[in-house]
Amino acid sequence: MRRDRFLLAATLGALFSADFYFILLPKLQSRRHRAANSCSCSPDTNLSLPRLETLATPYLSNWTHAPLSSAATTPELDDGGSKLQRLFSHPLYNIQTPELQPEEKLLQAKQLMEYYGRKVSHWERRKKLFEEAATLTNISLMEQKMTYDPNASWLRFHLGINRYALYDRDDPAVLQLLTDMQNMTIVGADYTQDEKALKGACDCTQVVKPSGHHLKLALKMSNFGKAMFKPMRQQRDEETPGDFFYFVDFQRHNAEIAAFHLDRILDFRRVPPVAGRRVNVSGEVLHVAHNEDLRAVFFTSPANNTCFFAKCLYVCKTEYAVCGGPDLLEGSLSAYLPGLTVAPRLSIPNPWKRSYTFSGREEWEVNPFYCDSVKQAYPYNSGNRLLNIIDMSIFDFLIGNMDRHHYEIFTKFGDEGLLLHLDNARGFGKHSHDEMSILAPLSQCCIIKRSTLLRLQLLARPRFRLSDVMRESLDGDPLRPVLTEPHLLALDRRLQKVLRAVQRCVRRLGQDQVITKDFTRPTATPQSATQRGNNR
Amino acid sequence: MRRDRFLLAATLGALFSADFYFILLPKLQSRRHRAANSCSCSPDTNLSLPRLETLATPYLSNWTHAPLSSAATTPELDDGGSKLQRLFSHPLYNIQTPELQPEEKLLQAKQLMEYYGRKVSHWERRKKLFEEAATLTNISLMEQKMTYDPNASWLRFHLGINRYALYDRDDPAVLQLLTDMQNMTIVGADYTQDEKALKGACDCTQVVKPSGHHLKLALKMSNFGKAMFKPMRQQRDEETPGDFFYFVDFQRHNAEIAAFHLDRILDFRRVPPVAGRRVNVSGEVLHVAHNEDLRAVFFTSPANNTCFFAKCLYVCKTEYAVCGGPDLLEGSLSAYLPGLTVAPRLSIPNPWKRSYTFSGREEWEVNPFYCDSVKQAYPYNSGNRLLNIIDMSIFDFLIGNMDRHHYEIFTKFGDEGLLLHLDNARGFGKHSHDEMSILAPLSQCCIIKRSTLLRLQLLARPRFRLSDVMRESLDGDPLRPVLTEPHLLALDRRLQKVLRAVQRCVRRLGQDQVITKDFTRPTATPQSATQRGNNR
Repeated sequence: MRRDRFLLAATLGALFSADFYFILLPKLQSRRHRAANSCSCSPDTNLSLPRLETLATPYLSNWTHAPLSSAATTPELDDGGSKLQRLFSHPLYNIQTPELQPEEKLLQAKQLMEYYGRKVSHWERRKKLFEEAATLTNISLMEQKMTYDPNASWLRFHLGINRYALYDRDDPAVLQLLTDMQNMTIVGADYTQDEKALKGACDCTQVVKPSGHHLKLALKMSNFGKAMFKPMRQQRDEETPGDFFYFVDFQRHNAEIAAFHLDRILDFRRVPPVAGRRVNVSGEVLHVAHNEDLRAVFFTSPANNTCFFAKCLYVCKTEYAVCGGPDLLEGSLSAYLPGLTVAPRLSIPNPWKRSYTFSGREEWEVNPFYCDSVKQAYPYNSGNRLLNIIDMSIFDFLIGNMDRHHYEIFTKFGDEGLLLHLDNARGFGKHSHDEMSILAPLSQCCIIKRSTLLRLQLLARPRFRLSDVMRESLDGDPLRPVLTEPHLLALDRRLQKVLRAVQRCVRRLGQDQVITKDFTRPTATPQSATQRGNNR
Repeated sequence: MRRDRFLLAATLGALFSADFYFILLPKLQSRRHRAANSCSCSPDTNLSLPRLETLATPYLSNWTHAPLSSAATTPELDDGGSKLQRLFSHPLYNIQTPELQPEEKLLQAKQLMEYYGRKVSHWERRKKLFEEAATLTNISLMEQKMTYDPNASWLRFHLGINRYALYDRDDPAVLQLLTDMQNMTIVGADYTQDEKALKGACDCTQVVKPSGHHLKLALKMSNFGKAMFKPMRQQRDEETPGDFFYFVDFQRHNAEIAAFHLDRILDFRRVPPVAGRRVNVSGEVLHVAHNEDLRAVFFTSPANNTCFFAKCLYVCKTEYAVCGGPDLLEGSLSAYLPGLTVAPRLSIPNPWKRSYTFSGREEWEVNPFYCDSVKQAYPYNSGNRLLNIIDMSIFDFLIGNMDRHHYEIFTKFGDEGLLLHLDNARGFGKHSHDEMSILAPLSQCCIIKRSTLLRLQLLARPRFRLSDVMRESLDGDPLRPVLTEPHLLALDRRLQKVLRAVQRCVRRLGQDQVITKDFTRPTATPQSATQRGNNR
């Protein structure tokens, strides 16, 4: 009970801080422009939710309108410097969760170190076996140096996972993990568990939903960390052809990278760290693979490049193989979450999942009142779950991902834990198209977390413009430019469409019903106020 | 015995005519230029087999050198007009086979008309069944008008097939057949027999050789003619990626069309007529398909185009489907040969077939004396068969087709019949690369039919330049331009390489051993001489 009260107080505190920042200050600044701006807001070029001032509640009209009107008439001053840093030092990005209780953390250090110990001894046993076999057959083995490091970045990342987010934005372990994935020696390569489960077979019971043909591999680092490698399949400037269904679209390595950065910028932190890397397909994959099935799919192409193809479907085909040049191949490396034995997860069908057939329609596509039934069904009938689904739909709409058939949660946190946004490689396929149906959860349920909306508002402002902070954030990846300019600009355009969808809801139902408090607990430190002052 | 003597006399006659035309006339014309031209012949820009004058036998040196030297120093006059017509009226293209004996024709009229009669009654029975079924289920059937026409172009094409060629170049039936394939109403669509045999299964026993994934369909015309439809899979200006193996390359509809034209220009006439057509995928394929399996692979894409995919391998995949725009789809229509029941054929492995594995090598690739063993083995140890294989390798080298694993012959004509050059869709993949290994039969066996060589020589001359006559010939197809300019120019470059390969053989072994008489029987009509006069 006490904790709940504290939560309520904390939430209210955060909202007051945000109100002050978004309403009072901008109102003072933009008062003189108010009269002129009402018709200057063309939907595609400015950042407003126009006509919100007609709403009865001045509260919403202010926070949505005021900063935007100043953008429309007197462009916000952009005083140079890093927009990303400015964004991350903004009070909205410094709402801290209180000290975490042990049960709010996914893993305890002791438990994790035991798990790590088991991994290390398993490796040592296997190594010994290999060495014995090599001595018997007179083959010289490549020396693979493995280092036991109780301070390894991937361990610290796993330790940091809690019921609110996968990581703390300022956690140096995450930056170190990105660096490690970019540079660390790869000592092992194998199929992922998914691919192994398939054993090269295809699930053709559904006409159109094959699995495991994505050429993804599990790579092992020299400190026992693991990452999922997805190779480049498509050029950055290629758009998904109009005739492709979402479920057969390529998986894009750069979409995986960009999705991680966007998720971090939205402050969701529900995507595990992803880094780009040019992998040596021979030295860092083939030569460190012990799985014979995997070794068998490697070949040298007529152009003398090292290539490999996937087991399923393509077993007979090489035109859909990926090739290095002659050995180097771009790809994304996504950090593995803790193994399912130590941190079990549930995979839950997305209530707004699509029909994976040519012409089938799911109920949400034909029934405008679909959300009403979702709202009444467990686990969407209480708590945060539906709001989390709506966060996810906004995220997917921004990246253009139509393929979110399932989402995952950690069993440990029950229904109130975070949703994981895994597998984002089908985003960023078409920059020229905004697939409004992805926003269906938002537009049909007409609710959104206040904290999410506030951040989206912020990112719509020139001082923090989403495309600019994304460009800056992605510039830190070795595979820069990760996204082409049209894809970056599409983010701004889509953000506007999200805000307009919220606006339509507010106009219809009133803000109290639409903009919902969430359980994120803000800090009410004086630091926030100082920060605010510095930002203006 | 008598016929053999006649053949010998006829062959000698043809050679003397050619000699007169190629040696004496040019010699007279170019005598004054002889002194200056010996070092002006750079291999890539003129049409000579340089240094052949050093050969002992003046005969060869003359026919190869003289016309070419005139080209090098005083460019051959190109008096405008149709180069294609000029080519086809050249004496070399008017060597007629004598009156065909009945056993030299593939089919007798009576036999063919009986076959046709059976087809018509089969159709009528099926139609009746469909109508009955439609009445029972209250479905209205599309009226499909079929016309029994004993004078149909496809029938006349079939009747014209003989032991020397699939058709007579001047046969109006062939032109009519091309027109019919381009325009005639399509009344039926089904899988080809190949695809039906597969029943959607894949032969995955070999890692890399799938079958039946080419989306080819059998289309039936309103006069009971049949054509094989291969849809467009690749843009004209796309080159096959360097990492593709020949056996997984796309099949190109335009390669099928261009191969027919080239084969006709080389005067082989071993490729059945092929025409381009924009087919309405809905009206001319889906709506006239009664095979439920075929109907099931059609779907409407997200861009609202009508698409279909192949049964095998792709059963789960649509990204490799082909789509109309929204219904029209380019493709090639190849005339069917007579059914196997009336004209059985044998499919024989090409002695120079490649290894259909990633790294395997066939004997011919590693043994420079491979041809010696081929020459001693039946059926290559006598008659024309090996020379026909070499013709085929020259044809394949010109189109860049590495995928000739088998060839077919009509059983009726035994070992002396023509070789069929079916399935040329993997030609014209890379204009920038000349795959010299395709010429292995020529360069290893060092023999070539004199008639083939003479025609290649002719096509190397500016007055008849291969690229020009091909461009002109292809311009008659509705899908013009069928080939891009780089592909056309590659033909000239490759032709030079063929001639140089012959030259190397002659230098090594002498012309008598290399340039071989063949069984083609020329006419010795005075018309040829007149023609010759006109051409100069």
